[in-house]
Amino acid sequence: MKKASPKIVFIGAGNLATHLSQALQKAGFEIVQVYSRTEESSKTLAEKLNTNYTSDIKALLKTADIYFVALKDSAVNEVLSQTDLDNKLLVHTSGSLLLSALNHYSKNYGVLYPLQTFSKSIYVEFREIPVFIEASSPGIENELIQIAKTISGKVSCLNSEKRKSLHIAAVFACNFVNYFYTLAAGYLGKNKISFDVLHPLIKETAKKATEMPPVDAQTGPAVRFDENVINDHLESLKNYPELKELYNSISRRIFELHQSKG
Amino acid sequence: MKKASPKIVFIGAGNLATHLSQALQKAGFEIVQVYSRTEESSKTLAEKLNTNYTSDIKALLKTADIYFVALKDSAVNEVLSQTDLDNKLLVHTSGSLLLSALNHYSKNYGVLYPLQTFSKSIYVEFREIPVFIEASSPGIENELIQIAKTISGKVSCLNSEKRKSLHIAAVFACNFVNYFYTLAAGYLGKNKISFDVLHPLIKETAKKATEMPPVDAQTGPAVRFDENVINDHLESLKNYPELKELYNSISRRIFELHQSKG
Repeated sequence: MKKASPKIVFIGAGNLATHLSQALQKAGFEIVQVYSRTEESSKTLAEKLNTNYTSDIKALLKTADIYFVALKDSAVNEVLSQTDLDNKLLVHTSGSLLLSALNHYSKNYGVLYPLQTFSKSIYVEFREIPVFIEASSPGIENELIQIAKTISGKVSCLNSEKRKSLHIAAVFACNFVNYFYTLAAGYLGKNKISFDVLHPLIKETAKKATEMPPVDAQTGPAVRFDENVINDHLESLKNYPELKELYNSISRRIFELHQSKG
Repeated sequence: MKKASPKIVFIGAGNLATHLSQALQKAGFEIVQVYSRTEESSKTLAEKLNTNYTSDIKALLKTADIYFVALKDSAVNEVLSQTDLDNKLLVHTSGSLLLSALNHYSKNYGVLYPLQTFSKSIYVEFREIPVFIEASSPGIENELIQIAKTISGKVSCLNSEKRKSLHIAAVFACNFVNYFYTLAAGYLGKNKISFDVLHPLIKETAKKATEMPPVDAQTGPAVRFDENVINDHLESLKNYPELKELYNSISRRIFELHQSKG
């Protein structure tokens, strides 16, 4: 940054805010305040950043330059409608919220969307995370690109519509995938087998998806239509009705997809 | 191995056979023949191993010591019923086939089950793969453990029932997970976005599942019940009925699971 580093306020103290604020601080930005609706969350993050916190939206500092909004989408309007940030740069970090969602609350606004799954306790290497920028003007777009480049090596611009498509794909490839890990772990637990034995398989499955198109990486009883195995597994799952239903429906989808491919 | 290294025949030339036979050969075992019902498959693997091949089950060599059966479960009886291997060591590699499935075809039999997803074109580090052993006698169990240890650093014994539970969990954590990668890739393709941008997310999601219980690693709109995002995504998926139905049902399951956890 050529000019003095902008002062930043974080509105939101969840998983994404926790990682993004720390990455920005490490890159030299001054985080002057953390706001969260729950005092405990704002305090926890503020202590990590050694900065101020509030759970009173009316106590939001007016002296910062950039206000990052990292709230769940359904809370954004409720919180921002209580602010007066018209001359500030307002930046949200959501995959699915339109850029224009901020235009009631400031003249200058943008989006900085890091495409990653964040849990507070798990370290992530921010430089590897793709970050997508959109802004209300070319000047602000450029400013956000410069800021994003201080924390990520993978910065690009993306409009609201494509960002939402990306977010939907991420729900399938991350959130739903993790749900299937959860089901596998729960089932192994009930059968007194440690989930650890699946770790190499989980890592390899992910790695393969980055080395070949996942449609070509498909293995297992469904893709080779090994009826004996499928029926045997469904029988074994008779006391797990939710798992059985999912097993049946996803296996059928996999089989049909690969049949139609020929 | 103290005694002369046993000679091995592979019955089956699919993904698992391809990787296991090469790992065994690299560990010093002699693979003397590959059989597959399709000549092309047996030839392809035999060329990798620089050995003989056949697609005629009656031409199976009688001079080997160990016969690895790496067929889809539904083909095992059909193929083995045409063999005469009563004095040989017969070893299957299936997650779900019972040990006793081999007792019609030899006096000496066992299971060597490598828990991994194998695609012919993707290299895997076999030493990292958990391998599970079961056998018709303690002597054979010990022999298979010794063989498995030459290729894997993670060898243990597991009975047929638990092995099947493990296989079912693997279907969820690998095969179904890969199907969700496939859906994400297909959706991104239709929206002209490269699947590559999801690679860091996919890797991190897998890594997290090895660092914390997946139930605690869950992120995304469903777990935080971000209704705006969920409804918005469902609306965006209106022209993708299969994706929409899955999005809706899996989101509801994630929400309910985490509600019931409190």
